Amino acid sequence: MAKDNLTALLYKPKDLQLVQTPIPEIDDDEVLLKMDCVGICGSDVHYWQTGACGSFVMKEPMIMGHEASGVVAKIGPKVKNLKVGDRVAIEPGVPCRYCEFCKSGRYHLCPDMRFCATPPIHGNLVRYYKHAADFCFKLPDHVSMEEGALLEPLAVGIHACNRGGVTAGHVVLVLGAGPIGLLTMLTAKAFGASKVLITDILQSRLDFARELGADHTLLVTRESNEADLVMKIHELLGGHPDVSFDASGAQATVRLSLLATKSGGVTVLVGMGAPEQTVPLGGAVSREVDIRGLFRYVNDYPTALALVASGKINVKPLVTHHFGIEESLEAYEVARQGAGIKVMIHVQPRDTNNPQK
Amino acid sequence: MAKDNLTALLYKPKDLQLVQTPIPEIDDDEVLLKMDCVGICGSDVHYWQTGACGSFVMKEPMIMGHEASGVVAKIGPKVKNLKVGDRVAIEPGVPCRYCEFCKSGRYHLCPDMRFCATPPIHGNLVRYYKHAADFCFKLPDHVSMEEGALLEPLAVGIHACNRGGVTAGHVVLVLGAGPIGLLTMLTAKAFGASKVLITDILQSRLDFARELGADHTLLVTRESNEADLVMKIHELLGGHPDVSFDASGAQATVRLSLLATKSGGVTVLVGMGAPEQTVPLGGAVSREVDIRGLFRYVNDYPTALALVASGKINVKPLVTHHFGIEESLEAYEVARQGAGIKVMIHVQPRDTNNPQK
Amino acid sequence: MAKDNLTALLYKPKDLQLVQTPIPEIDDDEVLLKMDCVGICGSDVHYWQTGACGSFVMKEPMIMGHEASGVVAKIGPKVKNLKVGDRVAIEPGVPCRYCEFCKSGRYHLCPDMRFCATPPIHGNLVRYYKHAADFCFKLPDHVSMEEGALLEPLAVGIHACNRGGVTAGHVVLVLGAGPIGLLTMLTAKAFGASKVLITDILQSRLDFARELGADHTLLVTRESNEADLVMKIHELLGGHPDVSFDASGAQATVRLSLLATKSGGVTVLVGMGAPEQTVPLGGAVSREVDIRGLFRYVNDYPTALALVASGKINVKPLVTHHFGIEESLEAYEVARQGAGIKVMIHVQPRDTNNPQK
Amino acid sequence: MAKDNLTALLYKPKDLQLVQTPIPEIDDDEVLLKMDCVGICGSDVHYWQTGACGSFVMKEPMIMGHEASGVVAKIGPKVKNLKVGDRVAIEPGVPCRYCEFCKSGRYHLCPDMRFCATPPIHGNLVRYYKHAADFCFKLPDHVSMEEGALLEPLAVGIHACNRGGVTAGHVVLVLGAGPIGLLTMLTAKAFGASKVLITDILQSRLDFARELGADHTLLVTRESNEADLVMKIHELLGGHPDVSFDASGAQATVRLSLLATKSGGVTVLVGMGAPEQTVPLGGAVSREVDIRGLFRYVNDYPTALALVASGKINVKPLVTHHFGIEESLEAYEVARQGAGIKVMIHVQPRDTNNPQK
Repeated sequence: MAKDNLTALLYKPKDLQLVQTPIPEIDDDEVLLKMDCVGICGSDVHYWQTGACGSFVMKEPMIMGHEASGVVAKIGPKVKNLKVGDRVAIEPGVPCRYCEFCKSGRYHLCPDMRFCATPPIHGNLVRYYKHAADFCFKLPDHVSMEEGALLEPLAVGIHACNRGGVTAGHVVLVLGAGPIGLLTMLTAKAFGASKVLITDILQSRLDFARELGADHTLLVTRESNEADLVMKIHELLGGHPDVSFDASGAQATVRLSLLATKSGGVTVLVGMGAPEQTVPLGGAVSREVDIRGLFRYVNDYPTALALVASGKINVKPLVTHHFGIEESLEAYEVARQGAGIKVMIHVQPRDTNNPQK
Repeated sequence: MAKDNLTALLYKPKDLQLVQTPIPEIDDDEVLLKMDCVGICGSDVHYWQTGACGSFVMKEPMIMGHEASGVVAKIGPKVKNLKVGDRVAIEPGVPCRYCEFCKSGRYHLCPDMRFCATPPIHGNLVRYYKHAADFCFKLPDHVSMEEGALLEPLAVGIHACNRGGVTAGHVVLVLGAGPIGLLTMLTAKAFGASKVLITDILQSRLDFARELGADHTLLVTRESNEADLVMKIHELLGGHPDVSFDASGAQATVRLSLLATKSGGVTVLVGMGAPEQTVPLGGAVSREVDIRGLFRYVNDYPTALALVASGKINVKPLVTHHFGIEESLEAYEVARQGAGIKVMIHVQPRDTNNPQK
Repeated sequence: MAKDNLTALLYKPKDLQLVQTPIPEIDDDEVLLKMDCVGICGSDVHYWQTGACGSFVMKEPMIMGHEASGVVAKIGPKVKNLKVGDRVAIEPGVPCRYCEFCKSGRYHLCPDMRFCATPPIHGNLVRYYKHAADFCFKLPDHVSMEEGALLEPLAVGIHACNRGGVTAGHVVLVLGAGPIGLLTMLTAKAFGASKVLITDILQSRLDFARELGADHTLLVTRESNEADLVMKIHELLGGHPDVSFDASGAQATVRLSLLATKSGGVTVLVGMGAPEQTVPLGGAVSREVDIRGLFRYVNDYPTALALVASGKINVKPLVTHHFGIEESLEAYEVARQGAGIKVMIHVQPRDTNNPQK
Repeated sequence: MAKDNLTALLYKPKDLQLVQTPIPEIDDDEVLLKMDCVGICGSDVHYWQTGACGSFVMKEPMIMGHEASGVVAKIGPKVKNLKVGDRVAIEPGVPCRYCEFCKSGRYHLCPDMRFCATPPIHGNLVRYYKHAADFCFKLPDHVSMEEGALLEPLAVGIHACNRGGVTAGHVVLVLGAGPIGLLTMLTAKAFGASKVLITDILQSRLDFARELGADHTLLVTRESNEADLVMKIHELLGGHPDVSFDASGAQATVRLSLLATKSGGVTVLVGMGAPEQTVPLGGAVSREVDIRGLFRYVNDYPTALALVASGKINVKPLVTHHFGIEESLEAYEVARQGAGIKVMIHVQPRDTNNPQK
């Protein structure tokens, strides 16, 4: 067995270090994974910079990483769905399996959820990592390890579209063209949306969104008049969106989503916003615009994998930067600056576990 | 044909008069109704006092009244569901029947809705009133005209419970013990809720709620600490409510409903609140507490009638004051002071159209 | 620790014996239960008489019993929801917790389900029995052990009403007035149904149903004309049922349920019928009457308990016969003859664990 | 105004004639349409050959045609959604607008539905035809009149997918590769299905299905063993289909759909089959495979148009034969022989109302 277990450990805010940690022992229902790709998410940068994200606060050093794929190196005696050598995408949260949320199909709300790189649980930006076998999803040969890692943010987009009830023929508004906004747009189209308008404050992101398939884009500025924006959205879409997604978390876009959505429609708040917000609730109430929040995802990995494997969604263009695990600090710095879309860290030499091209 | 058509006409804010108006001519799909009972709603008092309610503003004199029952006096040639002499409850809004909302079962969101006593449409606090026959519901003999009039606010409670998805075994929180809060409570129990807690700022209303069947009551004051109230609610219910209803419209209770509801649950905003509100949206998002507004009701009259006729809901105790149409001004004044629960105006001598007791 | 572990063991078809078996050792997430009440179900009688039920076939001797309640005698180190002395109702099926059905809230369809007294899994008609702690539901003091055991068939009625989408104001048809039909009727009323018609081939059962609260009853005979019965059902209900339940499993009643249900309504097949059936499918298709089967229940115990504890459903009258565990054979014989409604076996002296009256 | 109103009139079974009929007068909410394209459906051929289809029986001569598009020639005074010259697709059924089905969003179940070429209502294979304006959908310039006519069978596919709850990532089985089967397949993919297997008894249809985008095809013969076919379906799909569609109506395929569908899944019966069928109901019940029939469509035209206009579905390849209205008899004969997929009758010279290419 290998002994090198290089690990990206966040000692305390702004202090990310590469250290050696012990290779973990697996339980009967677990697998040991030789990690391959690990993407960087906005929440990772938050923890790195501040030690906290939303209500989660880091109190001990924590291994980073939760958007990941790896190769099965060892399996526990009860594992039936995987074998050594399988290439897998890792759903990073493992719930308690006993509470009413776990039993009723909403395990993402389990109060005892153990989720990678959410304090006090360690993540998987490390050479060897163990995980519950049933939360690892075997990748077909033609799906790359990078795509496997990207199933994680894609699952957010899928959960968002499930929450919004997006279906064929829907007109959709996505506010914010960061990775989650873009993946929500791609997912909405895969769910059959016939028109998607995406907004952002950066024209470069809108240009990228257009390349990925956005039907309409709208540049907003902090000075934009709210009522004008709503009218502009309706003009571009030729009507009101059936479903709106706030993928930014800013109060301004939450407000827009409530105002622009069709009566009887749904606005999904994907972004984690401020605890307190001042919103035009009266109109949403009287127009029966439902407001639905989002917490991660649930039972969405199989769908994410099916959509990528069948070619319905192409996530590859989202990866704009690549680093080795030894360059993790540099990778985090690039992610912090927000230069590209998605920064990918390779724990193995790139394409080690991908099929020949 | 009678000639007396005494009418409660709101000339302008604070100027309610009793005048004569012409008895209307009916269309082919309409019935002429000899009105019997007409309740007073909070919105009626609003129009009377201010000439407006929410975004609806009165520009011309308007006949009051929309919680009503009457007796069929004449039917149009296309009417098949009713005959002269039928005692009916009147669903006060008639939609266009042509738009996508009307066709898809959400006619209450029809932009061309004609709703009694909502400007510029006249109400039915008048001797003779005409209405679309299919929005009149025949009362069985044992259901009184007062009960018929009360189907209107009851339909709000039913729509609220439908919106909230209340079902058997649910634990329910109702914030506000006015007529709508009380009817929502009664409806939630009829939908199978096993425990309902109702709150108010008046102990007298809570006492009344308890008589009607509330499992728990909680007195709140403007000085109550928010976090303490949430904890108190959870203690009384032995857990978090599956569904919460804000039946007050105050920002304080909207906030409470978001904070107290179970993760993955629903909060229904029944009360028409301020256009802009500052609410703890972050927590609702990350706990996936859905926020759903309410606009009147849709397809709820048959259910309201079934629940009253079968004895599952007893609405009679809610009527605390009675007046003749000639005393309309006095009736409105009593309603304005909020002394009792529901003020009922009798256009006919009381019990004229009710079965012998 | 006690050593007596009297056990009702079915050696082979028609050979039920009382023997001693070892008291089981519990796992970390399990509790040991001192059994109290165990009801007899139709499937129990089937196994006893034929060694099989549906596709389940007994190959080894099997301990009987699955409608049960008991008292916690010992808890595993990971158990948090219970303590020694707690009186509990036992949900008899424990799923694998790992498959897609378990994760998506439909654990009753788990292919690795371990369900009491379903081959090759042993039941709980025994002095000491161990079970997953999270599938034991603590009874409040005022709920008796018999009621606890009756939560099992009640959960079937609740799952049936959930499958049928029964809600307030619904008109409901229940075909068959055996224990499951009666509990489905009671549940439908607790879900808000305003009218329930129940049918049977025995007038005595209909009389009992009427006492329990049936609004209408209809005696059917094997010679009844199908079209006449449908017409009679519509006459009695004053319309078509929104939801129909076949609680008999006979082809004749399955046919009736399809024919009688309202267009756009639902028929729920609660009874386990013949593998092959000839049914009037054409009409059900063109009238969009949905056909939904039923397999046990899922997440329904909390609701069952809430409805019993709150007094919304009174299951007590259903128990018509009582026996001690030593009289199990006699009890089974009474159940086989179908004399009463529900036969209850007491493993403890009656009322040992119930509150003083 | 033109006087030529050439009309394809079915005098009696097997007696289709071209005659002149009066140009109709429109009501206030109607439009007069100059018809353009009218497709031939299986039900049309049925009426032609037998005078009946399902429970509908022709008693008087009837104008044929219901899959149609036309150009607005005149509008009633209340019409707001259209103007003269608009090119429209015609949703052929106009409901009563008053009954509970119409009000609750299920107008396709309206007992007073007036549906083109369903006795005793005339169809639109005629030069001039009048229709309710709100059941005419304006085509964008780039959507052809043929596509407009094809929205009708496409709406069936959309209603089928809505009934089945098809969503992203679903694995789907379609039994029967006629026009409705093919359109259901295309629609399922537009709804996000990641894998669709289609079956038929003709290899030529499967080849065509493959060209249209089927992921898998399976040739069945009348001699195929049922259990083998189910196994073959599971092999090809790598698992059980989430949703199955019987688009043939044969008992053999209805049976297959029940047997092959995943536990907890849905089988949609799209084809109008025999009134009585012998099916393996026991297994469907115990595996909770829901059975849902289909009657036409409801609120599906906007979705059909959005999917065609946005390019998500390409219906053009389905039209394999073209005829002028003067050649109607020949067109019906070709449709009867089942040579191609869809036979289109042009009331106007081909491409008259289409944009320049």
